[in-house]
Amino acid sequence: MSHPVLAELWRGDIVESFHRGAFAVVDSDGRVLRAGGDIDRPVYARSAVKGLQALPLVASGAAARYGLDDAELALACASHGGQPEHVATAAAMLAKAGLDAQVLECGVHWPSDERAARALAAAGDTPCALHNNCSGKHAGFACLGALMAGDADRARGRLRGYVEPDHPVMREVGEALASATGICLVDAPRATDGCSIPTYGVPLRALALGFARFGTGSGLAPDHARAAARLRRAVAAAPLMVAGSGRLDTRLMDHFGERVFCKVGAEGVYCAALPGRGLGLALKMDDGNTARAAEVALVALIASLLPLDDADRALLDPLADVALHNWNGRRVGRLAAAVDFAAA
Amino acid sequence: MSHPVLAELWRGDIVESFHRGAFAVVDSDGRVLRAGGDIDRPVYARSAVKGLQALPLVASGAAARYGLDDAELALACASHGGQPEHVATAAAMLAKAGLDAQVLECGVHWPSDERAARALAAAGDTPCALHNNCSGKHAGFACLGALMAGDADRARGRLRGYVEPDHPVMREVGEALASATGICLVDAPRATDGCSIPTYGVPLRALALGFARFGTGSGLAPDHARAAARLRRAVAAAPLMVAGSGRLDTRLMDHFGERVFCKVGAEGVYCAALPGRGLGLALKMDDGNTARAAEVALVALIASLLPLDDADRALLDPLADVALHNWNGRRVGRLAAAVDFAAA
Repeated sequence: MSHPVLAELWRGDIVESFHRGAFAVVDSDGRVLRAGGDIDRPVYARSAVKGLQALPLVASGAAARYGLDDAELALACASHGGQPEHVATAAAMLAKAGLDAQVLECGVHWPSDERAARALAAAGDTPCALHNNCSGKHAGFACLGALMAGDADRARGRLRGYVEPDHPVMREVGEALASATGICLVDAPRATDGCSIPTYGVPLRALALGFARFGTGSGLAPDHARAAARLRRAVAAAPLMVAGSGRLDTRLMDHFGERVFCKVGAEGVYCAALPGRGLGLALKMDDGNTARAAEVALVALIASLLPLDDADRALLDPLADVALHNWNGRRVGRLAAAVDFAAA
Repeated sequence: MSHPVLAELWRGDIVESFHRGAFAVVDSDGRVLRAGGDIDRPVYARSAVKGLQALPLVASGAAARYGLDDAELALACASHGGQPEHVATAAAMLAKAGLDAQVLECGVHWPSDERAARALAAAGDTPCALHNNCSGKHAGFACLGALMAGDADRARGRLRGYVEPDHPVMREVGEALASATGICLVDAPRATDGCSIPTYGVPLRALALGFARFGTGSGLAPDHARAAARLRRAVAAAPLMVAGSGRLDTRLMDHFGERVFCKVGAEGVYCAALPGRGLGLALKMDDGNTARAAEVALVALIASLLPLDDADRALLDPLADVALHNWNGRRVGRLAAAVDFAAA
């Protein structure tokens, strides 16, 4: 099945490149309001479901027990840029549970935020696990594991291997994903994510349902519904934590607050909840292009679903139709959504 | 028209992302030996045609006049990583013509080579035009302009605006592209490239023809045929200059020498000449993905066209079927060509 073109890159007067993908808009009863492409094919949700994966951190009482604040809960849902604020916040989460970066099993990479990476290099430093874009999520797993273990000393031992699918921490995390989306973890395709935790193949239809539920609480167990509301409030209050300076998730939630909860995933996946509309949405670009294709498509899809005022349009319009400039600042083309989502 | 899938990214047991594209293999008489997708749609050739654009530098006598060596001629055909060797070589080219980096109109960006970028940051430095991946090409344009102007002082004035399509330097460069590929510059779509020179929309069929001619000399004017042979020899002798450490063009030509002349372009374009086979090839990924999709497809295509020994296969096989590891070094999937090019 050939998916529809969702985003196009124009250079001069012709389309230079284009991106195909599939998308689904679903309500919390599972009704599909809009869709394009095959929405029943399993798609690895990757980091797009970090919000769902953070539900046990709150629902278990770990977040309250360790006094995690808005910034820390937002970081638990984050793919962050490794900026100094992100690194310090991940370290603070671990410290509150009596732990440190030694327990993290996410691996190490340079900050994706270029300024942060260059500052690190300029200081003669190299990155550690706290700089990994998933360190907040993993710090949240560690806090959950600390609560389950009872105390920090025991936790350090018991946390070992927490990234494995059968570890008690990861079972909790997997169950939260399964119950929100309605998928069966045993039957779903499973692979290893960039940060070593399992990632499951979930149809876009089910991902969108999970986000409709995350945004409304409807269809979730009461403790997960309360946890979802807490996480949505936290990210709206600390949007820098969920991504980083200039990044789309940060910009959208900085502007829309709790009207939008959105989360990017690797390989061109994007999910969002629009709580006021009772809707969840999920999209995946065939080619895995996140930074330009999935972002433009997500913005156009949100713009087609939300009631917008002038300030909203002033933010969204240039994000769904992006002017492209070259190294001399010359305008050379544009990147634009290619589907009229309102008619899809 | 939906193009064939040329490369697939597997994670676990399913395809996570895939890349569609078109390709053409053509001989110097314009006969199409293999093709997939629409090879008559104009495609911006971008940096893939830097070799063709360097023909006037040699054919004019400028390269001989200024005593440009293999490394410098290879850099004139390069999209380099901004490594110290690249920067020094671009500066040396300009100095030989009595010029300096002030004349360059390519713009400035950080080195794409991460080590080079971090070393620059660690030294408290920022990049200049010499670090631009196109600085060697532009230094070649400046040398051509210096020869045309007669002396360096006059050249500094006359070079101003050399990136514009109607500047005498750029007219020479455009004519070389047009005569090699057989396209008419006036009729072709035209846009502005990343480094501000014009880029033309050229069908893959014509790009492949241009590379078949570049690789054999057949169908080129005698001075351009000699220039092509000189440039091929230069790149084979100094393959680090044409791209950089670990980069595909460098690795392939370091191994194959003059058996392969290949050049990447932005937005998923790749062109190559296989002189011994008398063939040119050109491909473009629909989604513009160069680093993984176009590279894998190019390698598989070359492997299907060249007679290979064990050493050749030892290089090419892991480049056409790439093991993917996560931040912890765990194997998470593979990236592989998806077309049996030998049967296409």
